[in-house]
Amino acid sequence: MFSHRTLVRLHDTDAAGILFFAHQFKIAHDAYETFMEGSGNSFASIFKDKTMLIPIVHAEADYVAALEVGDYLSVRMVAEQIGDSSFTLSYRLVDNDDRVVGTVKTVHVCINRQSGEKIPVPDKLRRALEAIA
Amino acid sequence: MFSHRTLVRLHDTDAAGILFFAHQFKIAHDAYETFMEGSGNSFASIFKDKTMLIPIVHAEADYVAALEVGDYLSVRMVAEQIGDSSFTLSYRLVDNDDRVVGTVKTVHVCINRQSGEKIPVPDKLRRALEAIA
Amino acid sequence: MFSHRTLVRLHDTDAAGILFFAHQFKIAHDAYETFMEGSGNSFASIFKDKTMLIPIVHAEADYVAALEVGDYLSVRMVAEQIGDSSFTLSYRLVDNDDRVVGTVKTVHVCINRQSGEKIPVPDKLRRALEAIA
Amino acid sequence: MFSHRTLVRLHDTDAAGILFFAHQFKIAHDAYETFMEGSGNSFASIFKDKTMLIPIVHAEADYVAALEVGDYLSVRMVAEQIGDSSFTLSYRLVDNDDRVVGTVKTVHVCINRQSGEKIPVPDKLRRALEAIA
Repeated sequence: MFSHRTLVRLHDTDAAGILFFAHQFKIAHDAYETFMEGSGNSFASIFKDKTMLIPIVHAEADYVAALEVGDYLSVRMVAEQIGDSSFTLSYRLVDNDDRVVGTVKTVHVCINRQSGEKIPVPDKLRRALEAIA
Repeated sequence: MFSHRTLVRLHDTDAAGILFFAHQFKIAHDAYETFMEGSGNSFASIFKDKTMLIPIVHAEADYVAALEVGDYLSVRMVAEQIGDSSFTLSYRLVDNDDRVVGTVKTVHVCINRQSGEKIPVPDKLRRALEAIA
Repeated sequence: MFSHRTLVRLHDTDAAGILFFAHQFKIAHDAYETFMEGSGNSFASIFKDKTMLIPIVHAEADYVAALEVGDYLSVRMVAEQIGDSSFTLSYRLVDNDDRVVGTVKTVHVCINRQSGEKIPVPDKLRRALEAIA
Repeated sequence: MFSHRTLVRLHDTDAAGILFFAHQFKIAHDAYETFMEGSGNSFASIFKDKTMLIPIVHAEADYVAALEVGDYLSVRMVAEQIGDSSFTLSYRLVDNDDRVVGTVKTVHVCINRQSGEKIPVPDKLRRALEAIA
């Protein structure tokens, strides 16, 4: 499991006073981004290489509790599935009382940046994912 | 069916050169927001009333094609399910060549703003949803 | 003058119930983006060319009135200054009662995408800017 | 001086490959938000009180260097001016090589949430601001 600490920012909320639903995906993605950097697969290096992109082809989320500005969260991420070209990440957002307040799932596919065709998950990334499977 | 025209803005894209996945939910939500206002259920009036909120409790999306800045879209929205307190909206994002480039689904629950308890979908909103069922 | 109609979206607001200040810049930029596309200088074509970027090097805004979800706005944009490599755009956000509710200014510089060095404002863009000077 | 560590997220960038200009204001505001919470003036408590809001009435930024995804930043914030009802915050964004890559300024006014009228900067907030003046 990969764990990432964060909090709800004012710009994550809306006039209903709580987290705007689409921003839960941003919060999950920040955890993914931090995981990628920590495992030597940083987006910066991926974009510099210009050989691969890893678009998200499916995303889903459940909202268990309303989150407010300043709420601290742990985002706990696991690799739920690792295929040839794709992988699925699953995230639980947990508050300071250890309650699950939201869940997110994202499905990622490795593609060749020029042709758009599927390519195998690179070894270094595969090992990083296996470590949190 | 409710249809809403929009386009991908620069701030909807990221350094991969395409739509950031979480922003497809924003694009869908803009259509929902326009539908709500057009049917006499504007968020402005809901927030002014202070009696009801309609949080999204589930959201999911599929990404069929990579979207770029300036791409025009029709967001076609239908009410997939209308329950006592909740309803499910389904959106297809269609490009200028009439290709479906993405789909979104959102599940909404009407709650009492003070108690947080479920309340029936208000009549005016129910009728508006039935008209796009 | 270039005029662009828009409205405040739920995701433009925050838990204070009004427009999050940084999103006024997004609203102004949407008008700029629409102007660019309409004048044959679309961002899509600029990014496809890969020869030029037009970063914003300065931005400022004043907030005259609190904006709420659903508020309709006209963004009225003029070219305040057109230099060799740079130009300054000035925007007034006007509500349905013709009151100025906010102002924005952005300074743009044309650079060579590879070298990062300043380049002259391209002719087609210069003519478009002169038309709203 | 108040210092806040952060980094450029993928959703802070756009298809030009660099930070979208409006998001520099979000980055500065995150520092302000952290400062407020650390000094006992959290937005959560302000919103719960329902007596005061502190809208931003002016914002400006200069962009010194293009920022990319994964770039680490220190946001160094000082109170440039503290008036009866208003205060001005000034931020320098500094990269890992101690270069200033951007600057932001925001002007805040304390108002009564119901009447909208200016009110004095509360004592606890004033002391916090004086400590970084």
